[in-house]
Amino acid sequence: MPKTIDVTELVLRDAHQSLMATRMAMEDMVPACADLDQAGYWSIECWGGATFDSCIRFLNEDPWERLRQFRKLLPNSRLQMLLRGQNLLGYRHYEDTVVDRFVDKAAENGMDVFRVFDALNDIRNLRRSIAAVRRTGKHAQGTICYTVSPLHTAGDCVEMAEKLLELGCDSICIKDMAALLKPQAAFDIVKGIKEACGQAVRVHVHVHATTGVTLVSLMKAIEAGADCVDTAISSLSLGPGHNPTESLVEMLDGTGFETRLDKARLIRLKKYFAGIRPRYQEFLSNITGVETEIFDSQIPGGMLSNMESQLKQQGAGDRMQEVLTEVPKVRADAGFPPLVTPSSQIVGTQAVFNVMMGRYKVMTGEFADLMLGYYGETIGPRDPSVIALAVKQSGKSPINGRPADLLKPEWHELRDAAVAVPGCNGSDEDVLTYAMFPKVAPQFFTARDKGPKNLGKDPAAQAAAAAAPVKPPPPDDSKGPVRTTITYDVKCNGKTHKVTVAPAK
Amino acid sequence: MPKTIDVTELVLRDAHQSLMATRMAMEDMVPACADLDQAGYWSIECWGGATFDSCIRFLNEDPWERLRQFRKLLPNSRLQMLLRGQNLLGYRHYEDTVVDRFVDKAAENGMDVFRVFDALNDIRNLRRSIAAVRRTGKHAQGTICYTVSPLHTAGDCVEMAEKLLELGCDSICIKDMAALLKPQAAFDIVKGIKEACGQAVRVHVHVHATTGVTLVSLMKAIEAGADCVDTAISSLSLGPGHNPTESLVEMLDGTGFETRLDKARLIRLKKYFAGIRPRYQEFLSNITGVETEIFDSQIPGGMLSNMESQLKQQGAGDRMQEVLTEVPKVRADAGFPPLVTPSSQIVGTQAVFNVMMGRYKVMTGEFADLMLGYYGETIGPRDPSVIALAVKQSGKSPINGRPADLLKPEWHELRDAAVAVPGCNGSDEDVLTYAMFPKVAPQFFTARDKGPKNLGKDPAAQAAAAAAPVKPPPPDDSKGPVRTTITYDVKCNGKTHKVTVAPAK
Repeated sequence: MPKTIDVTELVLRDAHQSLMATRMAMEDMVPACADLDQAGYWSIECWGGATFDSCIRFLNEDPWERLRQFRKLLPNSRLQMLLRGQNLLGYRHYEDTVVDRFVDKAAENGMDVFRVFDALNDIRNLRRSIAAVRRTGKHAQGTICYTVSPLHTAGDCVEMAEKLLELGCDSICIKDMAALLKPQAAFDIVKGIKEACGQAVRVHVHVHATTGVTLVSLMKAIEAGADCVDTAISSLSLGPGHNPTESLVEMLDGTGFETRLDKARLIRLKKYFAGIRPRYQEFLSNITGVETEIFDSQIPGGMLSNMESQLKQQGAGDRMQEVLTEVPKVRADAGFPPLVTPSSQIVGTQAVFNVMMGRYKVMTGEFADLMLGYYGETIGPRDPSVIALAVKQSGKSPINGRPADLLKPEWHELRDAAVAVPGCNGSDEDVLTYAMFPKVAPQFFTARDKGPKNLGKDPAAQAAAAAAPVKPPPPDDSKGPVRTTITYDVKCNGKTHKVTVAPAK
Repeated sequence: MPKTIDVTELVLRDAHQSLMATRMAMEDMVPACADLDQAGYWSIECWGGATFDSCIRFLNEDPWERLRQFRKLLPNSRLQMLLRGQNLLGYRHYEDTVVDRFVDKAAENGMDVFRVFDALNDIRNLRRSIAAVRRTGKHAQGTICYTVSPLHTAGDCVEMAEKLLELGCDSICIKDMAALLKPQAAFDIVKGIKEACGQAVRVHVHVHATTGVTLVSLMKAIEAGADCVDTAISSLSLGPGHNPTESLVEMLDGTGFETRLDKARLIRLKKYFAGIRPRYQEFLSNITGVETEIFDSQIPGGMLSNMESQLKQQGAGDRMQEVLTEVPKVRADAGFPPLVTPSSQIVGTQAVFNVMMGRYKVMTGEFADLMLGYYGETIGPRDPSVIALAVKQSGKSPINGRPADLLKPEWHELRDAAVAVPGCNGSDEDVLTYAMFPKVAPQFFTARDKGPKNLGKDPAAQAAAAAAPVKPPPPDDSKGPVRTTITYDVKCNGKTHKVTVAPAK
């Protein structure tokens, strides 16, 4: 009997986060849910920090309502989310009772599997949220952010897995957000965890496709005993996204492993999302091939596109290569944190600042906090001279304890602030939305009544927008409205006129 | 000590054949040659039927001159070509002395490695060309076209390898032109060949990337003992092309295997071809993601794009799905030939005819020949009722012997015909060019003096050409010349006129 390999489908969360800037509207997900629910996946990843943020920032969707809809539309499936430990879905540490409240509410609204990670792999930042998940009776998946550095070894991953299991985690996830996990490392880590912690410990493997090698890594992880792997349906896969679900299924043919996924439903899902993808053309990642240079820079796909757009905003789109060279240096100065939200943004933004303004001439508040221990411990020592600059620029002192221990109970304060915002409905869910995105939540609360906004566009209309005119060159904002009239030189009865024309109907 | 895995780089032949309709001009290859020559490849594939054809049909380049230039530009490299056995680079069987002559001339002009295959895996069609290569002292690589069918087994491949080695081949190639070779099959076949024929027998593996699984197959082939694998530099890889060279290098890190390729040169090559690729935008394959449906249809990438353009030419671009369903049926009727040039074109074109005009209502001459044994033996029996139709439509009888045995010595006749063509320079090379492409060679001989024609275009100019007009929709032949004048409804002084306009200068 072949061993069954479980699969987590990423199309509703990480796939569109990685490939189309997290812009997919719920409306475009609904028609796929019946097939997703019946295809035989172990879980459907559908919620996380970026999707929550995008819901209220761009799509005028209530992310809690989205979760409740998923619960209804995927009645037979485990719903899975990505939780940033003590950061929840935000970018700072929250006080413990806020963490508890968030997990309770997510579980209550339908979440089944909580994949909990900390950007620095600091186990102290994971304890409270894992305990909260366990108390709800839901699945707590302890996560190891995979990274490479002169200091990281497979042994570190095994040790961290042991600590996560001591916290009562139901499974372990190896999370490779930058496609750095090579086949042999995947094999060694999974094998190491199984040998040290027992064959019965469930190991999940999450990889991105950016470097082109990670489907091989999944094969080796499976050979080493991995129980579940993450993939995305092929029409929303590859590039900075993930390996194609269908390719995983075919890859295992005859190997003694099988997925038991329903291939006919996979083909339907592929075709469905192939139709959705062009609607988000303007948000699609520029990266389509493979990028093995990432093995040197260690920059995950999402971070790459963030930095690209930061540079473009500052009119410095041509300085990407300098930034790519700067990132590993900033990372070394900061003690080799893994690069994942929020550390990827913190390191990436500082690298952009260093290139634009000189090294550490201007330090972001977040980077100073990282240097001073306010995000937790890093695996390596942090550069003392940069710490000194952080002290000087921020006026703060370094800390050694668990960052959240510095926080006072804040739920009531957050609640008071939230309910004072026009449009807040007073629910715990709204308070949590406000707590995590205090700058964005107010405009969302006010606009919520207008209902969801689908940013997808008819591909024909987009093509038309991109087409006109041949000359003169398009105005600076090439993403502006569709131009339907153009001025031409027209020869009519032998005379040339400047005439404004519209396409014939 | 890690075992060295050799690599054949495909960028100068199969990569641009698969991704950009074989249109890359020599001029665009020259600047890459120094890095290609020094990067540490086992061989550089650079010549074959489609590149030869494209040279004289589209690029006004003498393919023999291209070969001589490669010889000069790649002094440290083995030059490798793909030879269609008794078909040479053409689409019919040639008489044995023509085969000898072609191989002699190719070797004389600089070719080192002859990868010799027969579309039907009929060993009788390979004997003469392999003997010819051996006589030149060059490397004869006997090739097994990998395919799947209810009749094919790994054992068949091992048996064929044994037969090829009996003919004196220096190495064996498993050629998977349709990305059908799954990891376990790759392992079993390579293992089987090594066990049956000896560990010292060199096994090369050529796979396409279309289904997304074949980098894993290369890993398993390497684990089973494969000596050399084929890849393409990443900026001209994936889709219907091949696995990225850089990903192969990284994949092997720490596994006990290594390529010894020079990574810095690979990055330079990647960047160089990333700059060339957009120049051929109009020829680029539409397929970018993975297509696992190929496991059902078994259609190689090049064949897909051929059929797409055939259908479009007939205004039936929307009937691709019917053709995809028809292909496996036609293939079964023909005794399950592998689908590779020319059998892929023969089966594909017949499938298009069947869909457009009814099943076997009109049979191509080539398909009738295939049914009647004029291309050789197939692994399975051919459908008697279709054979009967072939007899009726073609007026020919079925044969059982080696097809080339029916041919009379033809060199002198071919020479007489060639030298009578204006512009023929009387060399054996020109006679061979004429022999293989008698319809195309005359116009090439006449135009040769005008020198090479680079079909690559400045990407900005292409964007402009693609931009106009918004409406009306482009005419049926969307690959026709760029339209610079368009008829619009123009309102001028309150009245609407039908007016032909050109973009303002």
